[in-house]
Amino acid sequence: MSLPDAAFLFELADAAARETLPRFRQPLVIDNKPKEGFRFDPVTEADREAERAIRRLIEARYPEHAILGEEFGRSGEGDHLWVIDPVDGTRPFICGVPVWGTLIGLTVRGRAEIGIMSQPYTGERFYATAEGAFGEGPHTGRTPLKVRDVGDLSGATLFSSAPELFRGAMQERFASLVDAVRLTRFGADCYAFAMLASGHVDLCVEPGLQPYDIVALTPLVERAGGVITTFSGDRPEDGGDVIAAATPRLHEEALRLLNG
Amino acid sequence: MSLPDAAFLFELADAAARETLPRFRQPLVIDNKPKEGFRFDPVTEADREAERAIRRLIEARYPEHAILGEEFGRSGEGDHLWVIDPVDGTRPFICGVPVWGTLIGLTVRGRAEIGIMSQPYTGERFYATAEGAFGEGPHTGRTPLKVRDVGDLSGATLFSSAPELFRGAMQERFASLVDAVRLTRFGADCYAFAMLASGHVDLCVEPGLQPYDIVALTPLVERAGGVITTFSGDRPEDGGDVIAAATPRLHEEALRLLNG
Repeated sequence: MSLPDAAFLFELADAAARETLPRFRQPLVIDNKPKEGFRFDPVTEADREAERAIRRLIEARYPEHAILGEEFGRSGEGDHLWVIDPVDGTRPFICGVPVWGTLIGLTVRGRAEIGIMSQPYTGERFYATAEGAFGEGPHTGRTPLKVRDVGDLSGATLFSSAPELFRGAMQERFASLVDAVRLTRFGADCYAFAMLASGHVDLCVEPGLQPYDIVALTPLVERAGGVITTFSGDRPEDGGDVIAAATPRLHEEALRLLNG
Repeated sequence: MSLPDAAFLFELADAAARETLPRFRQPLVIDNKPKEGFRFDPVTEADREAERAIRRLIEARYPEHAILGEEFGRSGEGDHLWVIDPVDGTRPFICGVPVWGTLIGLTVRGRAEIGIMSQPYTGERFYATAEGAFGEGPHTGRTPLKVRDVGDLSGATLFSSAPELFRGAMQERFASLVDAVRLTRFGADCYAFAMLASGHVDLCVEPGLQPYDIVALTPLVERAGGVITTFSGDRPEDGGDVIAAATPRLHEEALRLLNG
């Protein structure tokens, strides 16, 4: 079976945007679902309604496909598994900062094949299909995504969602990576992966991910020419500690420091 | 003399946007001007050309006013001083993340009276004039800015540009504030102050600011009902260690922790 095309990814992203955008910067009930490493893990009606909308469209078009979503878990089985984070970056979402995104990816026999990161407030979409990886924004049409090459770590820009993700031994190892790169920034969540695929960022390091945090972003990074694996160098689709790098050299140099 | 109106602030912001936006996410020569606390302090042609454009318009309209800009220093003297940061958040700018802003403020005898934060990629403007404080964005018309009240620190969201700004004794004191609040986020620079004035963020804490980092944001915070001072409780126009709080209670509780 051929892979779904970009038009279907847009249809899913638009359905999600109709649920997220009207709730962005509006008073919302924020529920807390504490998980490891965070006292406060917010979830809102925007997350839940966006996932429902995406699931409805997938079930109608591909009833034989399985779905794994952050809010409603897994349904179905088989070779094709859609993996959804309706609002990746719920923290920036509830703070009004438009670096959150709707993540929708499809794995075939465990491998991420297509994916989209949609940021409806800025009107941006970053996506990868069989045709390649592309970005679209309010000030540009469709542009191919391509990583850049800054050489070694001393020229690299590193992103991570939050410094508190790095604890114990990992805190020291991450600090040695911070010391080695040119610039470290926090707080851009999935948006940083889109900027890596766009050639503006060189490394994204995120410990403790779930599959729905990374499946959609994996084809974006790979089809833009980047490398994305766990810290052990394995495929990233199952989540865990994940690193995305613009080049194999940066991937190797950063992993050497992160693995101590 | 009456204060300049919002239309003039928009004229300045639009002139700056014509210099910044075409250079955003484009290959740029990035110069480094290391300063205290940062190994890497980037400046680009976007910063310099935007400041030139703003200065030209102010000099034509208000030749008797003085100007202080991040890139070209101070010119003129007198009661009226325009204070400009053409690209506040050059770090997110060079990473492609649209949380940078053009900051333009006017002080009269040392007091910040009007100001604008313009984010041209998202099409947002947050501004304060004699008429009040307002926000405008791509999905909304003009909306009055108003802080929220979450009660005490345990319900508060805290922002700062970067964790490495807090060194020595201040690192521990900042950590005690992080422990006391509900959520801490990094990396939004001036955008976080706009979100505080918009009622989505409760505290912004930034050590070591220059006047051009804070003058434009001061009337935004104050006219939205918030409190903005140095850590000693003084007026923020001269920069230094600055805290903005949505309410007097959060301001007092946070300062107690930050001052040890």
